Amino acid sequence: MKLGMVGLGRMGANLVRRLMRDGHQCVVHDLNEETVRELAREGAIGATSLEDLVAKLDKPRAVWLMLPAAVVQPTLDELVPLLEPDDTVIDGGNSFYRDDMARAKRLAALQLHYVDCGTSGGVWGLDRGYCLMIGGEGAAVRRLDPVFRTIAPGRGSAEPTPSRTRNGTAPDGYLHCGPSGAGHFVKMVHNGVEYGMMGAIAEGLSIIRHANVGKKGRAIDAETAPLRDPEAYQYDIDVAEVAEVWRRGSVVGSWLVDLIADALARSPQLDGFEGRVSDSGEGRWTVDAAIDESVPAPVITSALIERFESRGLGQFTDAALSAMRSEFGGHAEKRG
Amino acid sequence: MKLGMVGLGRMGANLVRRLMRDGHQCVVHDLNEETVRELAREGAIGATSLEDLVAKLDKPRAVWLMLPAAVVQPTLDELVPLLEPDDTVIDGGNSFYRDDMARAKRLAALQLHYVDCGTSGGVWGLDRGYCLMIGGEGAAVRRLDPVFRTIAPGRGSAEPTPSRTRNGTAPDGYLHCGPSGAGHFVKMVHNGVEYGMMGAIAEGLSIIRHANVGKKGRAIDAETAPLRDPEAYQYDIDVAEVAEVWRRGSVVGSWLVDLIADALARSPQLDGFEGRVSDSGEGRWTVDAAIDESVPAPVITSALIERFESRGLGQFTDAALSAMRSEFGGHAEKRG
Amino acid sequence: MKLGMVGLGRMGANLVRRLMRDGHQCVVHDLNEETVRELAREGAIGATSLEDLVAKLDKPRAVWLMLPAAVVQPTLDELVPLLEPDDTVIDGGNSFYRDDMARAKRLAALQLHYVDCGTSGGVWGLDRGYCLMIGGEGAAVRRLDPVFRTIAPGRGSAEPTPSRTRNGTAPDGYLHCGPSGAGHFVKMVHNGVEYGMMGAIAEGLSIIRHANVGKKGRAIDAETAPLRDPEAYQYDIDVAEVAEVWRRGSVVGSWLVDLIADALARSPQLDGFEGRVSDSGEGRWTVDAAIDESVPAPVITSALIERFESRGLGQFTDAALSAMRSEFGGHAEKRG
Amino acid sequence: MKLGMVGLGRMGANLVRRLMRDGHQCVVHDLNEETVRELAREGAIGATSLEDLVAKLDKPRAVWLMLPAAVVQPTLDELVPLLEPDDTVIDGGNSFYRDDMARAKRLAALQLHYVDCGTSGGVWGLDRGYCLMIGGEGAAVRRLDPVFRTIAPGRGSAEPTPSRTRNGTAPDGYLHCGPSGAGHFVKMVHNGVEYGMMGAIAEGLSIIRHANVGKKGRAIDAETAPLRDPEAYQYDIDVAEVAEVWRRGSVVGSWLVDLIADALARSPQLDGFEGRVSDSGEGRWTVDAAIDESVPAPVITSALIERFESRGLGQFTDAALSAMRSEFGGHAEKRG
Repeated sequence: MKLGMVGLGRMGANLVRRLMRDGHQCVVHDLNEETVRELAREGAIGATSLEDLVAKLDKPRAVWLMLPAAVVQPTLDELVPLLEPDDTVIDGGNSFYRDDMARAKRLAALQLHYVDCGTSGGVWGLDRGYCLMIGGEGAAVRRLDPVFRTIAPGRGSAEPTPSRTRNGTAPDGYLHCGPSGAGHFVKMVHNGVEYGMMGAIAEGLSIIRHANVGKKGRAIDAETAPLRDPEAYQYDIDVAEVAEVWRRGSVVGSWLVDLIADALARSPQLDGFEGRVSDSGEGRWTVDAAIDESVPAPVITSALIERFESRGLGQFTDAALSAMRSEFGGHAEKRG
Repeated sequence: MKLGMVGLGRMGANLVRRLMRDGHQCVVHDLNEETVRELAREGAIGATSLEDLVAKLDKPRAVWLMLPAAVVQPTLDELVPLLEPDDTVIDGGNSFYRDDMARAKRLAALQLHYVDCGTSGGVWGLDRGYCLMIGGEGAAVRRLDPVFRTIAPGRGSAEPTPSRTRNGTAPDGYLHCGPSGAGHFVKMVHNGVEYGMMGAIAEGLSIIRHANVGKKGRAIDAETAPLRDPEAYQYDIDVAEVAEVWRRGSVVGSWLVDLIADALARSPQLDGFEGRVSDSGEGRWTVDAAIDESVPAPVITSALIERFESRGLGQFTDAALSAMRSEFGGHAEKRG
Repeated sequence: MKLGMVGLGRMGANLVRRLMRDGHQCVVHDLNEETVRELAREGAIGATSLEDLVAKLDKPRAVWLMLPAAVVQPTLDELVPLLEPDDTVIDGGNSFYRDDMARAKRLAALQLHYVDCGTSGGVWGLDRGYCLMIGGEGAAVRRLDPVFRTIAPGRGSAEPTPSRTRNGTAPDGYLHCGPSGAGHFVKMVHNGVEYGMMGAIAEGLSIIRHANVGKKGRAIDAETAPLRDPEAYQYDIDVAEVAEVWRRGSVVGSWLVDLIADALARSPQLDGFEGRVSDSGEGRWTVDAAIDESVPAPVITSALIERFESRGLGQFTDAALSAMRSEFGGHAEKRG
Repeated sequence: MKLGMVGLGRMGANLVRRLMRDGHQCVVHDLNEETVRELAREGAIGATSLEDLVAKLDKPRAVWLMLPAAVVQPTLDELVPLLEPDDTVIDGGNSFYRDDMARAKRLAALQLHYVDCGTSGGVWGLDRGYCLMIGGEGAAVRRLDPVFRTIAPGRGSAEPTPSRTRNGTAPDGYLHCGPSGAGHFVKMVHNGVEYGMMGAIAEGLSIIRHANVGKKGRAIDAETAPLRDPEAYQYDIDVAEVAEVWRRGSVVGSWLVDLIADALARSPQLDGFEGRVSDSGEGRWTVDAAIDESVPAPVITSALIERFESRGLGQFTDAALSAMRSEFGGHAEKRG
């Protein structure tokens, strides 16, 4: 079918390519005109403005937004007046699910459909396909089925789940999760899970990398915990090789282990990474949701906090700890 | 080559089968005579005792122990006097790596070789192969290369790592990690990572499952935190389908997600699981190692603690919390 | 001065008593007429309705609400129309600080003053005094100074801080923290700190209480982590005595330790406490604020999650963990 | 009574002073001769060597060691041959309780007594008294009662616990906790509790200090989580005043809050503290014990990990996280 794509960053551009490979027509727009031209050279229909994009689509239209969360609302403010009843807007980015709920309600009042779609797959999705987590009313979602089916990885991309007996599109790699917001809710939690898995893998590799701490002397003073068994920490283990071997047959086998194995193959010291880990919202929202639901989520929460620590955001807390130690014990702070 | 296998539980028996499929000869022993007979019917050479097993092996012998950690030492006490210089013992179970260090030293004094081998793959290893993390002196490990190569999944079991340029056996699914204990050290941390990944996945599914808490009333009293936005928690999301869709194209794609998708396909409510999660040592040891090394490992540590909580082990702590609340605020404890 | 008090629960009634002891006049109202009569017998002016209460106060009036958070808004809806310009409402309960911001704005439009006041001290405050954390515009707060000064513990209740050189009311036990909401913001975080301190104390006592685990056998199987050094856990330590001794001279000396010592003096096994620990909102909001601010708060957050665990809210997570273990390792779940 | 004191650092010297004030005689030794002379000027009996110290004590002797944990064993190696049956050694420092168990056994074989005594109170103990947690056989501990009674804060240092009906020395501020090692076990956990309480207080103050984050712009890009409600974080709250007000009447009232209030009174920005927080062993051992006992201790554990983070020890973990993000999403790391 014919789809409008607004936002041609890494993700948006590759979605268009994957759609065109499978025979869909795409009308594309981005503030960066060069990207529009590039995709036009690859077969897309370029649009110079949202108005132009809307004009070039067939009714009822389907417009997919692939934009940073902060840009979605202004874009909607401009786009919606251009649309007509029964048109559909898909937000394929990482919007907060509560924004979806509000937007869907506003669009419904104009007889427009709104579909939220969490899209996972990163820079590899062009070839692997993207995992799609979809929210919205059933009819609107069903109408987009050909698009979702193309974007998703497809049934052959993994072995069938042995015990599975049900029908449905989940094995194709896309899922209608529920009403408006449900898609981004599931994607939000997906990213929370991702934080936790990443934290576990990174910590494990770090513990292995420091298995040689017994070789280094540790200061003997009242400020430093002694290492009781230095002879048990004399290993120089190659973490790049460990990541590689974990890719096969192990319980921790996962795409994330594949990726860190690749990064470590390039640089076993991870040169070029200082270790300031961003968090782009979904992890926080996942923790907020867990708290609202009273669901204990210590692993995911710890992974979020670990990212804050990586950026040095605990500085005042730590200074207060040092200050208390100084007050009660006369402990001078050790310098790095 | 010819290998002795002591311990024919789930893991040991399947190791033998995988070895025989690839043309190796196995002399097998277990306290359970029926298991010995069963494997003999499948082509193994049964042994009625450790003495018998030793007698049936070619020199220099190689004896693989696949036993619960607590049984390794008594078995070694009985086995070692039967061996001769240049024989090798492999501990393929989940021993604590410091025990390996001590055992290797003791065996070396008798001119025996000791190899520790962490074996991951669970009940699925017969077909998928097992990921092997190996410790010990180089010559002893190299001599066992044909055995490791057979047991491991092999190069074809995963896509090559794009940036990889080095040689080595890691892409075959087995790795000589370092001197005695290094294999079980890496396996120990592997299991710690496994705890963290499992925790992240389980928590995420739980947060999704409880996305309908807004539908339930919550008591309005001073003892209960109110849910501020019940309208944002009205989703009934099918977690079994979510797990299935995450198997394809998503960043959290992993064997563990495959497994929980299978369990949920069988029972979306996870009937039959009360939720008392065991921990069998490696997770604890991983946290101990992280602490010894001063490496922050909040994710893995939280996953361990979560398992303690699942078994109700925080009861006195919680009673003390309730008691304090009662003391300062006159809060009566709410009953379940 | 003359103050209206609405809500005569534990806290409200004792605030009135403390105010009357110091010569203030109180007009009191509660839905429970018996409580009104009781305080009237002690010298307060009873009011049968909000209208009556308003009528019995001098202009400009000051009405203190001491109500569960969920009841504040309906009470305001009824009270506000009865007030006149320059009157003041004080919310002394545990409202969410963002509600204060909204309410202050709405009242300001009617030329009414709104003061938020976090009140700590629990059932002991009548004698000890209450720690007050106050938000609102300066003039409104200053006008209430005689009331705050009476309610607060006063300068003599603790040794002076040696390095302190500044003026201000903090050493008297009350503090104007900032504009509307700042009082409840600081009280919210105060309660978060309280959660963390309580968790630390309760966990420590639990670790001491279980210092005899080495005396108990632990199952020897693949599902149970062995205790490597049972001889190091043979202590039967009296936690009630430990709590008592910590009250004097130790770094952990605190009111909370005083309280748990009292509870343990009454019942060393904490009989009567099942261990289901409520959380009444402030802890959650504190964690939400930490996340919004990107401040790592692992201790406070863990204390919140620990309360969720105490109420069995991790059940589905735990079942999922057991299910995964069963899938990959054939581990049957151990029953309690 | 007459007591030998070996080690005249902050703690040792003040113990001697407190003992002399109460009429005890002290024979003192330290490698630093000037400190010995100083205490001799204050009334102590100086000793130039351990031999000299032993010679100057009355039989049966009592020698108190107040030394860094790492120096205890070499000192014992030199001291023990100088002692005679029925003499007693007290280790008042922060030794690991398992070392006490071994040492007590070795000394018992020589008919010597060994008492372990955890001593809390820091630089303030001279005036406040020290909280003492004592392990060892009953007779040896009882014989030292006059010494403990002097060192401890005494009954008057806190209000009586209302519900307390038992006898015993705990209200005097010292407690015989159990057999050898029990004193240091309880002190170890005490310090673990201290970590948790400190973490809670420091985090809380940090959350309050950053209550103005809404005033600062946050980058709008895909790498940075947006602050959804900047208008709710506009408070400039004076944390020094907050710490001061919390000292009176609040539930978090504690010596640690007293101390941070003092530090903040000196410098509201905590100038001079970079925030690298040492940990000197007891926190780690507490967590190890909790794990051995299978007691969930998330709060204390988080506080320990927070200290590791404060020293930048998560660097490789964080680099691995950044590397994974770069691999799957093409996320470039944001620089500080």
